[in-house]
Amino acid sequence: METLTKSSESLLFSQTFLKAWALQLKRFTQVVDELGDETLANQTAPGRNTGIYILGHMVAVHDGIYPLLGFGDRLYPELDALFIRTPDAGKGYPDAASLRLKWKEVNQRLTEKLEAMDPHEWLDRHTAVSESDFAKEPNRNKLNVIVTRLAHVGYHAGQLVYLKEKVQD
Amino acid sequence: METLTKSSESLLFSQTFLKAWALQLKRFTQVVDELGDETLANQTAPGRNTGIYILGHMVAVHDGIYPLLGFGDRLYPELDALFIRTPDAGKGYPDAASLRLKWKEVNQRLTEKLEAMDPHEWLDRHTAVSESDFAKEPNRNKLNVIVTRLAHVGYHAGQLVYLKEKVQD
Repeated sequence: METLTKSSESLLFSQTFLKAWALQLKRFTQVVDELGDETLANQTAPGRNTGIYILGHMVAVHDGIYPLLGFGDRLYPELDALFIRTPDAGKGYPDAASLRLKWKEVNQRLTEKLEAMDPHEWLDRHTAVSESDFAKEPNRNKLNVIVTRLAHVGYHAGQLVYLKEKVQD
Repeated sequence: METLTKSSESLLFSQTFLKAWALQLKRFTQVVDELGDETLANQTAPGRNTGIYILGHMVAVHDGIYPLLGFGDRLYPELDALFIRTPDAGKGYPDAASLRLKWKEVNQRLTEKLEAMDPHEWLDRHTAVSESDFAKEPNRNKLNVIVTRLAHVGYHAGQLVYLKEKVQD
């Protein structure tokens, strides 16, 4: 069996991770695509967030990863007021079509930057941690941001599927 | 700034990932711990899985990771019939107390093995992929199993929180 060189190890770590990230995004997007605009406006469970709120929340969070990883300015900072700082009001939201587009746009733009990173850059500090804190906790790196966001994609995917019709057992 | 050697790079990849894994397990466990046995018996949304089914499902899936990563035999293979191969029947399940214990036991045992791995072992083949397939798709490694399961923890955590009382906005 061929032994991996150390640098190909890091490359394989990052490639494995990027593929898993892409798969989770794809699964979330598939659920969103399956749900019509009217269904998306419904609550995922009684008294819980609507689909449209969850979609807007995901767009805002993923758009926010861009500056957090030092990639530059985000596209839609105004979404935070609606979908992060304020709980679901059930109305007053951008239409579903525009959020569906933004979800794809924001992830496409982010993924391009992630794929262009050198493997060791995953281990660099993200912009929300100070240099001194990072020296003490080197796991607060870019990889950690994306792993945490990957779990977050799963979290809201698990809720969004409750808008799908229940298949008879 | 100090430059990381290649071997410390792999170590940091695996350590970052292990901490993120531990955090997601801790969050899921916190939700389980907050819910009483009676609440756990309820459906997470109308017509959807009960909390007890989700907990049993998580125990079965995480117990199943053990042999998948080549660590040895699992503890509770009999749970698959109840919680993986069969949809929620709403009754006939082990009591909540025993599943709560098993959840912690299974993760403790798994985490010990994960923490004992050399960083490069994360990139090894898992037991459900053949050598020839692995040669073509080297991302089907142990890391990929755990990243996928991490998203899965998030998925069901997002559903389980629907059993918590809604905080007034």
